Amino acid sequence: MTIKIIVAGPRGKMGSETIRMLQHEDTLQLVACIDRKNDGKTLKDVNGQPALNVPIYENPLECFQQHADADVLIDLTVPDAGYVHTKTALENHIRPVVGTSGFTNDQISALSKLSTETKTGCIIAPNFAVGAVLMMQFAKMAAKFFPDVEIIEKHHDQKLDAPSGSAIKTAQLIKGTRKKKQQGHPNEEETIKGSRGANVDDMRIHSVRLPGLIAHQEVIFGGAGQTLTIKHDSISRDSFMDGIKFAVQQVMKLDKLIYGLENVLDME
Amino acid sequence: MTIKIIVAGPRGKMGSETIRMLQHEDTLQLVACIDRKNDGKTLKDVNGQPALNVPIYENPLECFQQHADADVLIDLTVPDAGYVHTKTALENHIRPVVGTSGFTNDQISALSKLSTETKTGCIIAPNFAVGAVLMMQFAKMAAKFFPDVEIIEKHHDQKLDAPSGSAIKTAQLIKGTRKKKQQGHPNEEETIKGSRGANVDDMRIHSVRLPGLIAHQEVIFGGAGQTLTIKHDSISRDSFMDGIKFAVQQVMKLDKLIYGLENVLDME
Amino acid sequence: MTIKIIVAGPRGKMGSETIRMLQHEDTLQLVACIDRKNDGKTLKDVNGQPALNVPIYENPLECFQQHADADVLIDLTVPDAGYVHTKTALENHIRPVVGTSGFTNDQISALSKLSTETKTGCIIAPNFAVGAVLMMQFAKMAAKFFPDVEIIEKHHDQKLDAPSGSAIKTAQLIKGTRKKKQQGHPNEEETIKGSRGANVDDMRIHSVRLPGLIAHQEVIFGGAGQTLTIKHDSISRDSFMDGIKFAVQQVMKLDKLIYGLENVLDME
Amino acid sequence: MTIKIIVAGPRGKMGSETIRMLQHEDTLQLVACIDRKNDGKTLKDVNGQPALNVPIYENPLECFQQHADADVLIDLTVPDAGYVHTKTALENHIRPVVGTSGFTNDQISALSKLSTETKTGCIIAPNFAVGAVLMMQFAKMAAKFFPDVEIIEKHHDQKLDAPSGSAIKTAQLIKGTRKKKQQGHPNEEETIKGSRGANVDDMRIHSVRLPGLIAHQEVIFGGAGQTLTIKHDSISRDSFMDGIKFAVQQVMKLDKLIYGLENVLDME
Repeated sequence: MTIKIIVAGPRGKMGSETIRMLQHEDTLQLVACIDRKNDGKTLKDVNGQPALNVPIYENPLECFQQHADADVLIDLTVPDAGYVHTKTALENHIRPVVGTSGFTNDQISALSKLSTETKTGCIIAPNFAVGAVLMMQFAKMAAKFFPDVEIIEKHHDQKLDAPSGSAIKTAQLIKGTRKKKQQGHPNEEETIKGSRGANVDDMRIHSVRLPGLIAHQEVIFGGAGQTLTIKHDSISRDSFMDGIKFAVQQVMKLDKLIYGLENVLDME
Repeated sequence: MTIKIIVAGPRGKMGSETIRMLQHEDTLQLVACIDRKNDGKTLKDVNGQPALNVPIYENPLECFQQHADADVLIDLTVPDAGYVHTKTALENHIRPVVGTSGFTNDQISALSKLSTETKTGCIIAPNFAVGAVLMMQFAKMAAKFFPDVEIIEKHHDQKLDAPSGSAIKTAQLIKGTRKKKQQGHPNEEETIKGSRGANVDDMRIHSVRLPGLIAHQEVIFGGAGQTLTIKHDSISRDSFMDGIKFAVQQVMKLDKLIYGLENVLDME
Repeated sequence: MTIKIIVAGPRGKMGSETIRMLQHEDTLQLVACIDRKNDGKTLKDVNGQPALNVPIYENPLECFQQHADADVLIDLTVPDAGYVHTKTALENHIRPVVGTSGFTNDQISALSKLSTETKTGCIIAPNFAVGAVLMMQFAKMAAKFFPDVEIIEKHHDQKLDAPSGSAIKTAQLIKGTRKKKQQGHPNEEETIKGSRGANVDDMRIHSVRLPGLIAHQEVIFGGAGQTLTIKHDSISRDSFMDGIKFAVQQVMKLDKLIYGLENVLDME
Repeated sequence: MTIKIIVAGPRGKMGSETIRMLQHEDTLQLVACIDRKNDGKTLKDVNGQPALNVPIYENPLECFQQHADADVLIDLTVPDAGYVHTKTALENHIRPVVGTSGFTNDQISALSKLSTETKTGCIIAPNFAVGAVLMMQFAKMAAKFFPDVEIIEKHHDQKLDAPSGSAIKTAQLIKGTRKKKQQGHPNEEETIKGSRGANVDDMRIHSVRLPGLIAHQEVIFGGAGQTLTIKHDSISRDSFMDGIKFAVQQVMKLDKLIYGLENVLDME
């Protein structure tokens, strides 16, 4: 069975990558795009897009009504537009797969209610890299048994913020399962400031920035006589495409909203 | 509350390490030992043992009857003796924690039945290193989403067998959840034999042997644009002691037999 | 001072990358290209090339005569054409920087003689990735003190040959300085064939192939109580560009031929 | 030929390890010890020492005169005593191998002069772990070509100071060859203080402290499209023994003083 797909945000980095991916998948078919410009054109008329005869709509409702047989909306826009797209899709029984961490709790509640009422599956995920999601879940589990943990994240030297969002997210997840502990020797001393890294709830995060790196993180747990390390290395946006494909397949089986890719990954 | 403990096999490597560990734990108290020699002596009379006034018995039944208030038997002997100790302990309502991979399925079934009948908890574990057990469990989970996987295990150069038992065990666990796949390029060619490692169900295992190593394993999963690595490094038998302590605490809450430390690690 | 450069092979992967690189370097100026087609055109006339008014020649001699003030030829073609280009360049006092491992010993001798006679510097390098070259040199040095060594190389799963050429080259360099030794336990046994990797002069090479990898190699030396690891990770052809730039600067100072980037890297 | 050896400091950690090592070496023979107590006894009379009939002296001059045929003094004491031992050994034509970083420049100059005058070889080394010494030398070499570098050092959580002395030493060596550069993005920002590590001359050092670790350091160099990593893992004092053995063999060939094991490691 072919799954009919509408992509919102076709000109962004993730959107254009998604359109490229869909062209290589036999069971996934791109039927329309939602864009904040180019209304009435087709993809092949738009500079930088592939030569596809796929219609573009600025108005999401019009798009969903013209393509009432579409199965899934993949939304890769910004939170404001994304919220409207998701709401409208649910009202039209088209299942949204949304890549954002920008929705408010109230917005998620409202969409969840609507998803249940319309019996229309919906997946909202801040991160589509399955490997990164698994790393965080495994770290959360391991922290129950190993309260001593440090995180090293490594990125290219054009990154502005340290620590990375993923490292902070990982530390927060760990905090939920780890028995609170002040790590290191109680009398340890930094002879040069910063050497022991960022202190998050007495865990330490270290941020490396070098040319030649892309996006890497390792979570190291230490216990008597042993260490356990969980490491994710990401070298391209391709890593997100597998997660989007997976979410599209899963959303077809849902009749409610699920937040976070980890909650559709059946690990047992 | 103090947990009263009998150790079987006090002169072995694991046994003597366990006795050393128990001396440092306030809530665990060594009350007796079972040994195949030294009957009637106390630990302090035995060469190489700590100066403890702890009685030694050759006959397990006598030991359990003399110490009917003991809570837990830690058995670190060989399978034959271990089976008799475990059975006798269950009959005397003393909870066994047994470190062996050598019991037959029939033996495990019989002990499991007895454990349930006597409502006496029992834990049998081939591996007490919590980190190694978690590595295998995480690998099993990750393989559901990443069918491409290779294992690198590294050990000191005095190890005789390759691959290691842990690596083979890991591959078997992965096999249970992984979608079967022939990895690598279909036309790949070894210009020097052995370079692509051992083939286990189309997964590859690589065994490194060098002085300066102890016991290390990493499981590497590859997907489009990303890799996920789970790595365990073990540097001493201390890593087993945490697992034994953990098992002792857990067995107190059980009224049946559980096989494998992973099944008492509540990961959720 | 600006260095005037001719590129041979502008349409290949390395050639087009080099032309892109030259556009961003203030002190390097592309003045002409040698190509086996497109004679008389300029780069901007050729599909896929940047909008540069740089003339293209099929005949190298004509090119060198028309651009007698050029300083350096960067040749990224195939060995046959490359040999003719290099010879002709030296005869015209233009310094060649050549990226090939395909010249015969006789060809290298002849070019070396010509380079000395014409007092025109020349660099021929099989590998322009400075990091890879340093990895091999460090491995060669370390092997004098650590005869126990294994190599793990990891590549994407589209690679056809195992072990990689770099791994074999590294093993050969190590062989030159390492005291011959049969590694591992004399009685070690592969319970699954291939686990101990490829045997090269009693060193072991392990080849990992997974999606999500690009090109990685680590050389691990083991000694009593310690290991020393030298690791190179390459994620794009950008790594070659720094080596080409470096070679261009170095060839300006030479009046003879040097083979191998390692011999122009002054490590002391 | 057997090398006759005197050990000063036989009861310290390094000293007792050295005596254990010498027992296993056919070509090295322990003939006497210098100790600040136990004068007139033999090793077998001293608690914790092996059953060797080796005489102990409190007075170094007496020791050297009684054992005028000794070849090498291995001094593993403290700087004050070590200086006297080394000076006296040189005056008696016994070659000192001294493990200390505590001599002043004046002391080293004086010993160097004496070594040359007496034509008696002498090696003073702050670090006998060959792997650690090579790591630092390779880092110094690589920094000439890769100005972007960060250091991660990992130690057990009982270590008091951060960063480690080795990491600081490595950074100082790198500083000598590296083109000064402010690494990372000029506008990078620590959203949590310390995440970017300790700043040493605009290089970053990160210190990880966890149970289950011993002593580990990696130096990571980044360039366009590549990283080069040099890593040393030390798991026991055994790593120093190989360096001491090596120094004993080398000092036999010297007729002057050499400071630093790196200067007797012939890497070419």
